[in-house]
Amino acid sequence: MHQALIKFMEEQKVMLLQEMDDVLGRLDIPNNLKDSMAYSLQAGGKRLRPVLLAASNAAYDSNPKKIQSSALALEMIHTYSLIHDDLPAMDDDDYRRGKLTNHKKFDEATAILAGDALLTYSFELIAGDPELSDTEKVQLIKMLASASGPEGMVAGQILDMEAERKPASLAELERIHALKTGALLEFAIHAGAYLGKASAEQLSHLKEFAHYLGLIFQVQDDLLDVTGDPEKLGKPVGSDVANEKSTYPKLLGLDGAEEMKEIYVQKAKTALVEAGAADSYLMLLIDHISRRDH
Amino acid sequence: MHQALIKFMEEQKVMLLQEMDDVLGRLDIPNNLKDSMAYSLQAGGKRLRPVLLAASNAAYDSNPKKIQSSALALEMIHTYSLIHDDLPAMDDDDYRRGKLTNHKKFDEATAILAGDALLTYSFELIAGDPELSDTEKVQLIKMLASASGPEGMVAGQILDMEAERKPASLAELERIHALKTGALLEFAIHAGAYLGKASAEQLSHLKEFAHYLGLIFQVQDDLLDVTGDPEKLGKPVGSDVANEKSTYPKLLGLDGAEEMKEIYVQKAKTALVEAGAADSYLMLLIDHISRRDH
Repeated sequence: MHQALIKFMEEQKVMLLQEMDDVLGRLDIPNNLKDSMAYSLQAGGKRLRPVLLAASNAAYDSNPKKIQSSALALEMIHTYSLIHDDLPAMDDDDYRRGKLTNHKKFDEATAILAGDALLTYSFELIAGDPELSDTEKVQLIKMLASASGPEGMVAGQILDMEAERKPASLAELERIHALKTGALLEFAIHAGAYLGKASAEQLSHLKEFAHYLGLIFQVQDDLLDVTGDPEKLGKPVGSDVANEKSTYPKLLGLDGAEEMKEIYVQKAKTALVEAGAADSYLMLLIDHISRRDH
Repeated sequence: MHQALIKFMEEQKVMLLQEMDDVLGRLDIPNNLKDSMAYSLQAGGKRLRPVLLAASNAAYDSNPKKIQSSALALEMIHTYSLIHDDLPAMDDDDYRRGKLTNHKKFDEATAILAGDALLTYSFELIAGDPELSDTEKVQLIKMLASASGPEGMVAGQILDMEAERKPASLAELERIHALKTGALLEFAIHAGAYLGKASAEQLSHLKEFAHYLGLIFQVQDDLLDVTGDPEKLGKPVGSDVANEKSTYPKLLGLDGAEEMKEIYVQKAKTALVEAGAADSYLMLLIDHISRRDH
């Protein structure tokens, strides 16, 4: 992988973890609730969404101080969605990234409430950030709520559950992923560029870029469930086939899915060039995401 | 009850239901998700929080257009908290207000997601309200997130669960209620007065008023569980005793709880006079809440 990208990603992760520590440290709340929120928030992972937000910001007028609260708020929302997803009533998972899921480590009621708390606090964090103007706060909150709420991620979850009961077409599959995963990735890219003062035209091209990046992410996710290394992934493979889930490899075959991914990669790169970000970490992240092994 | 108050409450309810219809109608989301959100949001109830917000606004520079989004956002957050509260992992209730709870009518996964959606959308609603300035939006979102998040309502839920495992003192009981119920009541009163351009001093007295109003609400809730009419309440009585819950009647006896409520009523009235709202619907609401039979 590109050395500069590795360094950039590492730096962003360090800043995110520092901000996380600061915010959790400031929270005056019951111990059990804080432990449960911290457990999932600090469980590791690629921190891809905050990295994308920072990369998008760096492609325009980079302003590291302004993006901290949005990056952490985004990671909080992603984390809440994982906690609620893992619940017995949803995916019923006992492990995530090799660690017990939140409701297994604590209990179901605490996991539900820790998720609710992370979701709620993400908006408080942005609303209280002294680095941002009121207009910036309102725009970011509007975008983040829209991406994660009933017209965004939550809609994706509902459609995903429905799709498990009946086979989905490629178009339906893309719609589900666009909402379930794509909406938050799009927020990351849009928010970073917005805080970097990208123009309306650049933001419009970035929207297209984000759309394809989300699809690349998903095709690779599906491919890894067939061809990935369980040790690197930190979870068993083959679960999609076992669950008879509609996936790219199932609908197009392995070669077809690889070809589709390559088409998306080209479209993402073209959109990025049109957004004036040809020479950016975002460009390097396309290949990073399309070739990731975990 | 005071005729003017009845009329005011009825008017507020009509406006809230109209706003609810408009917002739900605009939402372009999966049917199942919309049905589940609408089911609980339109399940009736006293709409006490929106009424308090409107009454508080009317006590100062009344501005009905400006309060609509906050009133509905508040009711959405209250509704999400009821949906998650009723879940099997939490209170495991099958009925609420004589109707099936959300997870019984739909399923657990849908109920969790409908709650998440209502919570998230409440912030989107305020952030997108064209009647409010950016500064007003930011203040309202900050207050609402703070009241409902890990330092507010969610903390109250966690402490309430812990208190079920060990007996709570009166001081602990008051802290739990202040967070679990009081924080949202306080938001209602603060937000209404803030949008009515109340002064900092008035807001400070209102904070005290809200504190006592929350306690009155809770003492009466506890009393109704002992002396109330199950038909009017729409739920069986005696559950607190059966669950060995710490309540005001249990800690102080029935007469002691009535006396305590009277003290809180006097303190609430004094605070309200000091807030310059002696002649307001808020004043009438004190007696309404302290004497309610459901």
